[in-house]
Order: sequence, then C-alpha cells, then structure tokens
Amino acid sequence: MSFTPQDLSEFAAFANRLADAARLKTLPRFRNGIPIVNKLEETPGDDFDPVTDADREGERAIRDLIETTYPEHGILGEEFEERAGKSAWRWILDPVDGTRAFVCGCATWTTLIALEREGEPVLGLIDQPFINERWVGFSSSVTYSVGGKDVNARTSGVRELAAARISTTDPLASAYYSEKEAQSFARVNAASRVARFSMDAYAYGLLAIGELDLVLETCLKRHDYAALIPIVEGAGGVVTNWRGHAVGTDDRGEVIAAATPELHEAALKLLTT
Amino acid sequence: MSFTPQDLSEFAAFANRLADAARLKTLPRFRNGIPIVNKLEETPGDDFDPVTDADREGERAIRDLIETTYPEHGILGEEFEERAGKSAWRWILDPVDGTRAFVCGCATWTTLIALEREGEPVLGLIDQPFINERWVGFSSSVTYSVGGKDVNARTSGVRELAAARISTTDPLASAYYSEKEAQSFARVNAASRVARFSMDAYAYGLLAIGELDLVLETCLKRHDYAALIPIVEGAGGVVTNWRGHAVGTDDRGEVIAAATPELHEAALKLLTT
Repeated sequence: MSFTPQDLSEFAAFANRLADAARLKTLPRFRNGIPIVNKLEETPGDDFDPVTDADREGERAIRDLIETTYPEHGILGEEFEERAGKSAWRWILDPVDGTRAFVCGCATWTTLIALEREGEPVLGLIDQPFINERWVGFSSSVTYSVGGKDVNARTSGVRELAAARISTTDPLASAYYSEKEAQSFARVNAASRVARFSMDAYAYGLLAIGELDLVLETCLKRHDYAALIPIVEGAGGVVTNWRGHAVGTDDRGEVIAAATPELHEAALKLLTT
Repeated sequence: MSFTPQDLSEFAAFANRLADAARLKTLPRFRNGIPIVNKLEETPGDDFDPVTDADREGERAIRDLIETTYPEHGILGEEFEERAGKSAWRWILDPVDGTRAFVCGCATWTTLIALEREGEPVLGLIDQPFINERWVGFSSSVTYSVGGKDVNARTSGVRELAAARISTTDPLASAYYSEKEAQSFARVNAASRVARFSMDAYAYGLLAIGELDLVLETCLKRHDYAALIPIVEGAGGVVTNWRGHAVGTDDRGEVIAAATPELHEAALKLLTT
C-alpha cells in the first residue's frame, strides 16, 4: 500500500470539505429550538443522550461526500451503521460531539473527523462552527484557524500539576465516572491549579493551542477520541488511557491528554495511586 | 429626581460604548499567554483567583469614560476602590467575569456592566467579546446581539425540572459550595434533564435566550450579579436568592435564576428541603 505525505495533504483538504458540509447541517440548527429525541428513552435507567437532526443530517452529509469521492474507504460514524471499506483507510465521524452542550446553547460542541490508516488515526479534525474555529492535525503538525486566520498549534510547556489548567466534561455524572474513577479525578483536580468542565472534545482543541494543560475523560468511544490523537500528539502533547497505554486498549474508554510528557507522568501517577 | 425611559435608552447606548472600550483591553489579551497574578497568593488556604491585566485595564477604560461623561455617578468595580457618587445613579462593573475561564481559553468569560438607580439594578449588559455576543437589558426588554444581528431575548417556557437544562459554575469547589449547598444543588441536578458547568455569568445570557432553563450559584458579589437581574427579569425569567428573597439579602451571595415562575418555585422547593 503506497502512503505518502501527499496523500495526507489531499485527505486534509478533503476533511475540510467534509467539515464545511457538516456545518451547513449543524449550525442552522444550533440555538434554534430544535426538537430533541432521546436515543435512550426506551432504556430506563440510562442517562440522557439527546440526538438531534443536526447529528443525523451532519453525518449523512459527510458520508455522502466520502462515498462519492472515496467509495473504497470505510466509514465508522456515531449515528449510522459501519460501512466496511476495501482499502487501508477508514473515516471515523462524530457530527456533533457534545450534544448536551449543543442543546444547552453552549458553543463547545464540535464536529470530529478522523482518518485511520490500518487502524491508526493519522489525521484529525475538530470543528466548532458557531465560533468558526477549526483544528486540523496530520504528519506531526496542527493548524488552528479562527475567523479565517491560521496559526500553528502547540501545547503549553506546563510540566507540573500545580501549574496545570485541567478539564473533564462531567465529574458528577456517575454514568461516566465510577466511584474509583471519580476519586482518581479528585486527586488530580486537588493537585492542579484550576479546572473547567463541560467542554467535551473542544477541551483537546484548547490543549492543542496551549490554553489547557491536561484533559481527562472516561467512557469515550472511538468516534469521540480518534480525531483527538493526531491533534494532541501533533501539537506536542501526549495522549494515552489512564494506565499509560494506547487509547482504546482498555474497556472504559479512558483518555488522559497532557501538554508535556512530564505532566502526563505526574497525572498518571496520581490516577493510579 | 427625574427618571424617564429616555434616560435608560441613553444610558444603554453609553453602556454599549463602555463595553466596546473594555473589549479593546480584554480581547487582545485573551489566549495570548498573558501573565497571571494570583490575588490571593498571600492568603494561604484561599482558592485560586487569577487577576489579569485584562481585568485591570478593562475596568480602567470603563471608569475613565464614566468619570468623564457622568462625573456625578458612583462606580463600584471589582478591581478598584468604590467611587462615591452625587446622584441616584451608580455603575457596577466586572471587566472580566470568569477569570478562570479566561485563563483556560474558554470563551465564556464576560464583561458585566450594570446601572443602579438608588440601589436597584435598572440596566444590565453582558458582553462576550471573542464570540461577539452581547445582551443589554432595561425597561423589561432584552436585546441579544451576535455577530452584529440583534434579536429580542426571551427565556424558554420550561416549567418542570424534569425538562430543565441547568447550570452552575463549579459544583465541586468547596470555596463556593458548602456541604449543605452542594447537597441542595445535587437534589436539583438529579431532578433536572441535563447540566452544563463552568460558565459564570455567560450562563444567564444563555438563560435569557431560552437555551438554559435554570442557573444556580453561591458566593456571588454585587459586581457578579447586578447586571444579571435586568437581563433575566427583562427576558421573562425570575431571579432571587436560594430562599426566594431578593438577591443580595443574604450572606452567601446565592442566586437562582429560572426561565419561568413555575420552574423557579419547583427548584426552590428542592433547595430548601
């Protein structure tokens, strides 16, 4: 299988087109009194998981473009069934990551697009349409654009927990944090400088531009984290599960992303205490 | 003392000028590697409270304009000493509400400007410069503008907790939530549909445009809440302390803001159980 940096530049341009197409479906539905369907309403006891037209229409728009342009590529998306491919390439899609934020009017939901080659995420895109922000990472480099201006994204140089600005989406939600995990997070939180919550994948974007230093989550699925890996690593950060192994090699979908290897190690130590 | 709706229109135009002046000081410092001074670093045991140049320069710009234009008005701001006035009017300023959000790169910090007449907030402004959003409320009406487009802001019609989208800034911070208050919040949280955190005064802006339904806080000071009152009430909502009395008539700076009187009553009942 041939695989050149050229391919990835082409795929990055295509990923931008995908994100543009998704925006046309998601943005008009944001803060617009959209109807909400609860995916889990027939599963009593499960947590609230809103799915909106924005999710479904966004993913449909992206899938249509991939199927037309690269019919041999695989597609794994949040909303529809997996489409098996006939090549090394597979697209991983989350048209609206942070549907809770979306339905609460918070401009921290994002569209996530990743491209895997033989199971490895090699390209990631995070898009926040309302603020008009986008991160695109591949080949160890990340471009962040806001309002049409591009900059090279780099993580902060923070190495100590006492100086770290940290984030997790919902430390109170027992659907995400087991009691043990909540205690682990609390130890890291207590040792860090400041914490902000409820940002889903947007937090990894802030990490990649040096505004946050550490992001912790549990219960992420492949469509939640695949796009983050090339972005966090390409911007100079480290991302693993809570045991220090590759993300996705455990059962709980744990992710820890840090600005520097030193900060990653310090946080891991507290998590596994 | 003469007091006409005309006065408030004029003061609203002036408040917009104040917010524009503050933007010139705050926005260039956002996501820009600004140095952080810890206001409380000489008070061991206190929580982290960053104050940035953005805060101080923003407030100075606003004060200069008020002192030049309305020298007889009083000024109470977060960063500098109170300036006694010689009239019924007093401006209440928080140049950067949500300094934690600001230093974490989150576009939920705001500039808050309120105008009191004989101690009553009669005009409020919330400004989020990075997204270019602004709420201006007076005379029982609120204008929300984003990207230059103005709309009339109204709260949602949500009356039941089970349907409510709720918010508080930091439910884990013992500096803000006593154990009893944390339990009260947890009861409301458990009864509601979905919660998002870490938004400071921005959450009241989302409440005023019908995107959140209930906002709860403790430990707010006058400069944190004065601007919110004309905005929440002007958009059709209800705002009191956690005992149902006027905000500021207790010791803990509690605020509960709700989209409807029914939702307010339902939440109060759980808070005081």
